[in-house]
Amino acid sequence: MKISLRETAAKLSAAQKIIITAHTNPDGDAIGSSLGLMHFLQELGKEAQVLIDDDIPAIFDVLPGYEHIGKPEEGQSIEADLLVALDVSLDRIGKVSEVVKAPVLNIDHHITNDDTADMLYLDGTCAAAAEIIYQLVKEMEGTFTKECAMCLYTGLATDSGWFRYSNTTPATMRAGAELIEAGVEPNIISEALERKPYESVKGLADAMQHIELFHEGRAVGVFLDFATIEALESTEGLIDMIRVIDGTELAVVLKEKEKDSCRVSMRSKGLDVTKIATKFGGGGHVRAAGCAIKKPFAEAKAELLAAINDALEQQA
Amino acid sequence: MKISLRETAAKLSAAQKIIITAHTNPDGDAIGSSLGLMHFLQELGKEAQVLIDDDIPAIFDVLPGYEHIGKPEEGQSIEADLLVALDVSLDRIGKVSEVVKAPVLNIDHHITNDDTADMLYLDGTCAAAAEIIYQLVKEMEGTFTKECAMCLYTGLATDSGWFRYSNTTPATMRAGAELIEAGVEPNIISEALERKPYESVKGLADAMQHIELFHEGRAVGVFLDFATIEALESTEGLIDMIRVIDGTELAVVLKEKEKDSCRVSMRSKGLDVTKIATKFGGGGHVRAAGCAIKKPFAEAKAELLAAINDALEQQA
Ligand SMILES: [Mn+2]
Ligand SMILES: [Mn+2]
Repeated sequence: MKISLRETAAKLSAAQKIIITAHTNPDGDAIGSSLGLMHFLQELGKEAQVLIDDDIPAIFDVLPGYEHIGKPEEGQSIEADLLVALDVSLDRIGKVSEVVKAPVLNIDHHITNDDTADMLYLDGTCAAAAEIIYQLVKEMEGTFTKECAMCLYTGLATDSGWFRYSNTTPATMRAGAELIEAGVEPNIISEALERKPYESVKGLADAMQHIELFHEGRAVGVFLDFATIEALESTEGLIDMIRVIDGTELAVVLKEKEKDSCRVSMRSKGLDVTKIATKFGGGGHVRAAGCAIKKPFAEAKAELLAAINDALEQQA
Repeated sequence: MKISLRETAAKLSAAQKIIITAHTNPDGDAIGSSLGLMHFLQELGKEAQVLIDDDIPAIFDVLPGYEHIGKPEEGQSIEADLLVALDVSLDRIGKVSEVVKAPVLNIDHHITNDDTADMLYLDGTCAAAAEIIYQLVKEMEGTFTKECAMCLYTGLATDSGWFRYSNTTPATMRAGAELIEAGVEPNIISEALERKPYESVKGLADAMQHIELFHEGRAVGVFLDFATIEALESTEGLIDMIRVIDGTELAVVLKEKEKDSCRVSMRSKGLDVTKIATKFGGGGHVRAAGCAIKKPFAEAKAELLAAINDALEQQA
């Protein structure tokens, strides 16, 4: 059931013991919005805890409260007044849905939210769930502690690609301004989040040895078979390295992650890559989509290239 | 002679024919603040032209007015009411100082400005010269056209590392917000500026094959001798790829650009790298410095490593 920002604020005010969760495989917004809300609620004298059914990447140790993020355990049972699920539809909160016994207040900025929670506050104009929490604090006439501000800023910055994606609005920037006033040092956060293990940078360099331009330079790809993938420590960030290549309309990374089973990620500068992804049962957004192709490397690569070829020819 | 923002506005108001320039080897702020001011002055009905003594990188072709940026020619003579020099001390505007006959109004945000212009408006709290031009437009009660806003946003974003460096203030963010309201699409600008030639990405990948961790992982470096450099198309962006490696306090790139002559760039997360750079006659900032070592590769590398070792040991 959809509710308003004011109703959301009222629900939070009325609750004393609140569990906060977000999606598995948590990103900067999942973690930042959760911890930001936790700090705010604790300032109000409430009992608030973050519970996420996954490991929290170590780069987020820069965020106050990182060490207090809990993980639900099999068979555990937690009574609370409210479960707040952030940046997520309920099918992606893992074991938290079984472990926590409480009405669910879902707060999200994804217009694809499945609206299955007891209460849903959805604002698709916000760049991040953290931007909604920022607005909620304003609605409740609260103030931003430095701890809260650091967490919310991280959500804003990561989901907007440091204020460079198309979801960045004047409201996003002004929220950022106020959070900096509350004590956020953007450089401290960005340096912490940018940290990569040596192996990861080395793996990236090795993977980049396999860059191929095709379709007369209109597309760029890296295709890694099982043996190559096995030899690489990491290929994280690969698509971001190649999508910037001048003149390309489409970037693709294909990885044979298991023998005879490939994962594909695509990015475009406007061409609708969901048209390619859906041919293989995948999906995504116009400019970022992906799919799995359960075929051996050479076959998967050939079929993918044919589909990309079709898409580029329709575009031309 | 230092003047105020109001006096700067008065000088611009009084002039009709205005030449705008910035530093050679122009970056996003030099170009963005110059074009932004040009658009604003043209809206006021003035004759304004940008003249920079260097080539303008093609990535900036996304900026309205890019194609009208002129280059001063030997022996040329241009009369004007005012020469506005942005983001620069006068020793870095090249031939513009000889070619343009006009009083010089210098607008800058570098506290190291040499204050040799007829008039200087300096605001070291601004993240970019473009942020000062934004304030100037407000001071003069002007409005931001989309063209002007795109150029100023580019200056803001590039000099602040997309709002992530320590120079990013609430005022920087709020200026950004207002420029987005005026029509800036941050994603259009960021995608354009991120473009890299294929050769450049390939060169980066090749150069990254030479990453070395040293001093027990406290420092990371890439050392490229003349032969290696010659074989690489580009090594642009190399230091940014390695400075993020987890656990490192210092990143260094040494390139033997000519036989027996090496260029060194260093970045740190707090350690004062000017202490290392000045040993070799270089300089810079605490966290980013550089120097030239006119010695053969092996010798230069050994001396540099010794200096870095000293600095790290003093730090420990
Ligand atoms: Mn999000
Ligand atoms: Mn500048």
